[in-house]
Amino acid sequence: MNANAIEQTEGCLSSCLQVLGNKWTALILRDLTDGPKRFTELEKSLETISPRSLSQRLDDLELHKIVTKKHFAESPPRVEYTLTERGRDFLPILKAMADWGAKHA
Amino acid sequence: MNANAIEQTEGCLSSCLQVLGNKWTALILRDLTDGPKRFTELEKSLETISPRSLSQRLDDLELHKIVTKKHFAESPPRVEYTLTERGRDFLPILKAMADWGAKHA
Repeated sequence: MNANAIEQTEGCLSSCLQVLGNKWTALILRDLTDGPKRFTELEKSLETISPRSLSQRLDDLELHKIVTKKHFAESPPRVEYTLTERGRDFLPILKAMADWGAKHA
Repeated sequence: MNANAIEQTEGCLSSCLQVLGNKWTALILRDLTDGPKRFTELEKSLETISPRSLSQRLDDLELHKIVTKKHFAESPPRVEYTLTERGRDFLPILKAMADWGAKHA
């Protein structure tokens, strides 16, 4: 691979795609833009995602330090997902993607 | 799904992800930034892609009017792939992705 006008250093784009190269991941990040969300809220918003896929995507995002998972000692127990700074730095990318969609879809 | 700060209209982001939600697709678009490329040039630049995958990705991009395929009546025959305007409009997204990678990788 060669670096060009897009990449300053070889591998920068691949590194972002390791996180974002999945449709659900991008839509989860979009949904977390408004603030912390519970698992069931994300599941409802994403409509056709399976609980297993959503769970895998969220674990993956936590592993990459894109979201944090916070447990509340309530009854029933509550779990919320929040974007980290790394996660919030995806928002300009998502906005640019949505603008492309608005222009060309 | 709900539109929010990211999307003006529901579905804009999904529509971009239909094209870009694949690692190879994004890297192919990056490589075409510099100008038209032949199949073998893309294959060499992407290193680990299989010819079958590259061919499928390029067919898909042609179908979505992101790239055009031009045949030159030479011997041996030459085929070149070029970004369309829709394709060039992906470049700000790729740049934003590469910037994220440069900051966070």
